[in-house]
Amino acid sequence: MTRPGAGMAADIDEQPAGYERLLSAEHAGAIARVAAVIAERRPRHVVFTARGTSDHAALYAAYLTEIRLGLPAGLASPSTVTVFGARPDLSDALVVGVSQSGGSPDLAEVLRVARESGALTLAVTNNPDSRLVGTAELSIDIAAGHERAVAATKTYTAELLALLMLVEGVRAGDGVLPAEERACLARLPELAERTLSDATPAQLAPRYRFAAQLVTTGRGYAYPTAREAALKLMETSYLPALAFSGADLLHGPLAMTDPDVPVLAVVGSGPGGQSMREVLPRLGERRADVVVVGSADVEATARMAVPEVDERYAPLLDILPLQRLALALALARGEDPDAPRGLKKVTATM
Amino acid sequence: MTRPGAGMAADIDEQPAGYERLLSAEHAGAIARVAAVIAERRPRHVVFTARGTSDHAALYAAYLTEIRLGLPAGLASPSTVTVFGARPDLSDALVVGVSQSGGSPDLAEVLRVARESGALTLAVTNNPDSRLVGTAELSIDIAAGHERAVAATKTYTAELLALLMLVEGVRAGDGVLPAEERACLARLPELAERTLSDATPAQLAPRYRFAAQLVTTGRGYAYPTAREAALKLMETSYLPALAFSGADLLHGPLAMTDPDVPVLAVVGSGPGGQSMREVLPRLGERRADVVVVGSADVEATARMAVPEVDERYAPLLDILPLQRLALALALARGEDPDAPRGLKKVTATM
Repeated sequence: MTRPGAGMAADIDEQPAGYERLLSAEHAGAIARVAAVIAERRPRHVVFTARGTSDHAALYAAYLTEIRLGLPAGLASPSTVTVFGARPDLSDALVVGVSQSGGSPDLAEVLRVARESGALTLAVTNNPDSRLVGTAELSIDIAAGHERAVAATKTYTAELLALLMLVEGVRAGDGVLPAEERACLARLPELAERTLSDATPAQLAPRYRFAAQLVTTGRGYAYPTAREAALKLMETSYLPALAFSGADLLHGPLAMTDPDVPVLAVVGSGPGGQSMREVLPRLGERRADVVVVGSADVEATARMAVPEVDERYAPLLDILPLQRLALALALARGEDPDAPRGLKKVTATM
Repeated sequence: MTRPGAGMAADIDEQPAGYERLLSAEHAGAIARVAAVIAERRPRHVVFTARGTSDHAALYAAYLTEIRLGLPAGLASPSTVTVFGARPDLSDALVVGVSQSGGSPDLAEVLRVARESGALTLAVTNNPDSRLVGTAELSIDIAAGHERAVAATKTYTAELLALLMLVEGVRAGDGVLPAEERACLARLPELAERTLSDATPAQLAPRYRFAAQLVTTGRGYAYPTAREAALKLMETSYLPALAFSGADLLHGPLAMTDPDVPVLAVVGSGPGGQSMREVLPRLGERRADVVVVGSADVEATARMAVPEVDERYAPLLDILPLQRLALALALARGEDPDAPRGLKKVTATM
């Protein structure tokens, strides 16, 4: 019998090594080859399909696609295809299924239908032998190794990095990343290591021991981080955690915040973080208890600081203290985050 | 000084008349003319952009677009354009901004940029003089009249109906709805009236007086309903309400449910409702307290029954008892749903 949370802790700690592995010549080369095919085929728009944690990686990739490639990108709900029999014409599209297990039958069905309609299809998974990989024309192995805990951590960040390398490879045209981009990426394992060595998350966890709920927020690249943090807290601590884009928060749910609802705000130093600066004072008016996660040096109840990087890389670092907070909080609440009640690692839905 | 909630109650009660108005020759004709232009221009995919309640109407329209038109559809985050300066090539796209006020500067900016890049643009609003309408090439007036409460109710369902009429008009080719479709739509005012006359929501509200949180769920067309119900509960009762697609619920957040977390499940009689039947037993295993909303006759702790219609029309009815539940619950908790704390009717974000 291992210590509760030992699996999740080990998964979390392996993330810098996971970045290193994906950036190695072997894996970077494989991703570059896929990127070159996509660049050559010139899709007119990109459709991502995913569920749960992988949906947040897909959302990050959709932002990257729009901002870095100038291609419209969206997230598709598998149910239109699998439940309602929709057969959208995807002949101009790249359709990307993201799934750590690659075993979800609904995603495989979406890719099968998309490929039939002439789409270029890509599976991004942690399992090269999976059904999703078998269905798609192209595939990327995120190479995160066996994940011990049910709550995904290292497979999430490996998906983020693989998708980032892919998008930048497509942008480059031939799949090969420019030297400057490679240099920025090469710093990530060490920055992730440094981020993980910060003791703040474990120190902050007791604050939320008796919180009844929690709000997470962020804008742009930081929004997927807010969503993933909320899901991690729900999966491991059973704490209802509501994620809002900073803009949406002002359109309604702000009413819900008060001094009893802690807010985790992901605020970086770039334009997305800048745009959060209109949100923080509004939270202040509601006397919310706000912890700022990220590189922005703003006033808040507390901070989980993260090294400053271009905002596009920040999701690879910002999520780390939030994963550790979820782990520490679950333990503080007497839960075993390695085996959340009612969950299985591979979820089969149609 | 009027009675708390009187405004929201009046807004809710006006919905059948709002359906009637939109279906009148004047408004149906205007929507048909817009639909005919879209059908003629043959966009290759559709991008919706919206915030808050209107985002849920846009999500419904995205399902309709994929299922009824066979066109890929997605929801765009305005921030990629407004915060990060993305300039996606939308020359093949129809870009639709949905907003009751039409006053959000970020949505107007997205439409402006889309129009510049060659997209066909459409504004769907309750204000023909708004900035959004001034920016878009085409516009639809949802004609819901002045909304008294800050929490949107009648403008939401008017957006749903206008978007439904639009999609079916595009499907018809010349904008004119087939006689069968017109006959189905013509029944909606009376069915909405009947749905609103049911006393169950007010009777159920006291059950949730001391609930600390709530989960809503649905699949396909019912998922926007679940999302909108959650937002209404948050805005008016400050009750953290988490909305999940039935499939996503099984991928993680299921762990959060227990006998103390009430679940509102939107379950119709069509394929979406059918696919929820794998979700309900899993909630049962977790001994969740489940109220089923919709036409499906399934076992649950309680039911808010809604007349049976094709699933595509169900969102126009299913939301009605949920709006009334939000109103009654807010009053039971001593809140004034007409003026939620910290909120304004028009929210300006960039």
